[in-house]
Amino acid sequence: MPDLSTASGLVAALNEGNRRALARVISHIENNDALAQPLLAALYPQAGAAHLIGVTGAPGTGKSTLVNGMALAFRQQGLTVGIVAVDPTSPFSGGALLGDRVRMRDLAGDPGIFIRSMATRGSLGGLAQTTADVVMTLDAAGFARVIIETVGVGQSEVEIASTAHTTIVVEAPGLGDEVQAIKAGILEIADIFAVNKADREGADRTVMALQMMLALGGTGHQQILHHGRMLPVDLPPAPPADGWTPPIHKTVATQNQGIAALVEAIEAHRGYLQHSGLRQTRDRLRAATELRMILRDLLLQRTLAAIPAADIAALVHAVAAREIDPYSAAQRLVARTTS
Amino acid sequence: MPDLSTASGLVAALNEGNRRALARVISHIENNDALAQPLLAALYPQAGAAHLIGVTGAPGTGKSTLVNGMALAFRQQGLTVGIVAVDPTSPFSGGALLGDRVRMRDLAGDPGIFIRSMATRGSLGGLAQTTADVVMTLDAAGFARVIIETVGVGQSEVEIASTAHTTIVVEAPGLGDEVQAIKAGILEIADIFAVNKADREGADRTVMALQMMLALGGTGHQQILHHGRMLPVDLPPAPPADGWTPPIHKTVATQNQGIAALVEAIEAHRGYLQHSGLRQTRDRLRAATELRMILRDLLLQRTLAAIPAADIAALVHAVAAREIDPYSAAQRLVARTTS
Repeated sequence: MPDLSTASGLVAALNEGNRRALARVISHIENNDALAQPLLAALYPQAGAAHLIGVTGAPGTGKSTLVNGMALAFRQQGLTVGIVAVDPTSPFSGGALLGDRVRMRDLAGDPGIFIRSMATRGSLGGLAQTTADVVMTLDAAGFARVIIETVGVGQSEVEIASTAHTTIVVEAPGLGDEVQAIKAGILEIADIFAVNKADREGADRTVMALQMMLALGGTGHQQILHHGRMLPVDLPPAPPADGWTPPIHKTVATQNQGIAALVEAIEAHRGYLQHSGLRQTRDRLRAATELRMILRDLLLQRTLAAIPAADIAALVHAVAAREIDPYSAAQRLVARTTS
Repeated sequence: MPDLSTASGLVAALNEGNRRALARVISHIENNDALAQPLLAALYPQAGAAHLIGVTGAPGTGKSTLVNGMALAFRQQGLTVGIVAVDPTSPFSGGALLGDRVRMRDLAGDPGIFIRSMATRGSLGGLAQTTADVVMTLDAAGFARVIIETVGVGQSEVEIASTAHTTIVVEAPGLGDEVQAIKAGILEIADIFAVNKADREGADRTVMALQMMLALGGTGHQQILHHGRMLPVDLPPAPPADGWTPPIHKTVATQNQGIAALVEAIEAHRGYLQHSGLRQTRDRLRAATELRMILRDLLLQRTLAAIPAADIAALVHAVAAREIDPYSAAQRLVARTTS
């Protein structure tokens, strides 16, 4: 039996399908302890086969129930499913009401499903990287589909979802803010739209609003990733704008309506990405973003470790006292490490 | 007349109360163009007098209307007010419905009020820094109170609000998710609670839920800032837990009810921070966080500039192909710049 106190033992157990080992690996990664780096380095080459699905939408759109239904549909096709919830309002991350949690039990006890919720109140910027690492771990552990559920209101959360291969934006009628969500730039990241709670009044209006927005100027997933500051990457030319038109699917997740068609659309998009070469592009963009984030943190750690804490404290004091601005202070710290 | 095409000209005009100059300064900062750094360096020493108020809460709690009312109340006391909206559902940032926008016109035309909305879909981590810079600019421009409105669902947004001197968490009855918002860790950042839409059924239940949570274990603002990875700072000992108990204020912002008491509570908290020395602590923590974020970006820029783009692209390619994990790749880039 593998030794679960070592990185190699944990990876061996994970590869045998040991779910306890998987949970432990994720904890090490989340805690960023001594085993985290060796685990990530060992798992990374194993990953890359999973199809990553981002699901995002405002609170109240019912996206958790939708994710639940999607997971069950994938299971019926014999596909294993990992779920990563970074949404504080999700039942998966323990934030929701009793009814939701009961519904979530549909998934419990099935070894082909693994659910992990992320602590959404950590350090600035840390959430995105930890989420990427946990998603990679589920990928490496062999899950065929990994669903990342985020709340489509926070900037980081939307960006996390949009790094998936297929991004689903969930809307719902009657929230009063469906138009807002669209305006907030969420339209641009959608590969597929789900209008959930479609048995409610106003569902057709929501669908029509989305259709109009799409007709006015869908820009495609690519663009929002370019807007972020990225590592320079040699990119293949952008795909024709008509390569993929985000379909709009009406669903009633609580009654399992429309889920099969939604899952079909995901698989169609998966095929499209592969045939068009876009899957490779997205994987490269994700790699570039990840490398950039890791490099940034690594450089900061090294620089701070190289300067006496008292000197840093003195500089912080000077900034707080407005004797120096933080930009000049940062320049000064950089100069010290390079001289 | 000052030359608005130079940093010194812009700062001179800003100091004369020229609102067009102020708007231009903010645009330079947002675009991060050649004038941004000199402007920030010139403005930083001028800032520090404003009281910074973070207002955060889920969509639908009516926080924009509340901010509107607070701004008017401050104006009646003769205080100037800057508003920075980083909430995609806020009328201030153009995401809301017509009614909200009409209500917002109360503030238009008053030179003692300046409203700026932030683009909420930028690059990872960039939003927090740009918001901090814009808030600092309004502070430097002499606004006595600067209100930062964010949506209390996203991680970054909550963190942005919690860097203010006084953080107000807005709840509302009948949203079905008020309990969720509390659970998501938002409780810990509140200096003051506003239960808005208090004329709705369930308002007392929301108040009671908050009271219970507070009784069970309020931890105070300090803690959440320590949870984030911070620059080492010499901190004064934590204040006694009973130093400030977050008051809970019922408001009906649309009818201007409870606003005066809320604004009084803000001023009381402002006094408390000053007397207890906590204001200095918070300013130092903000300076430390800011210095850390700026240093991190600066180090990344320098490192990337020092390595040929083709080499970086090759490494990104290797990461995407799973030939190397991004952690080892980052280590390799660091090694190149230090050898």
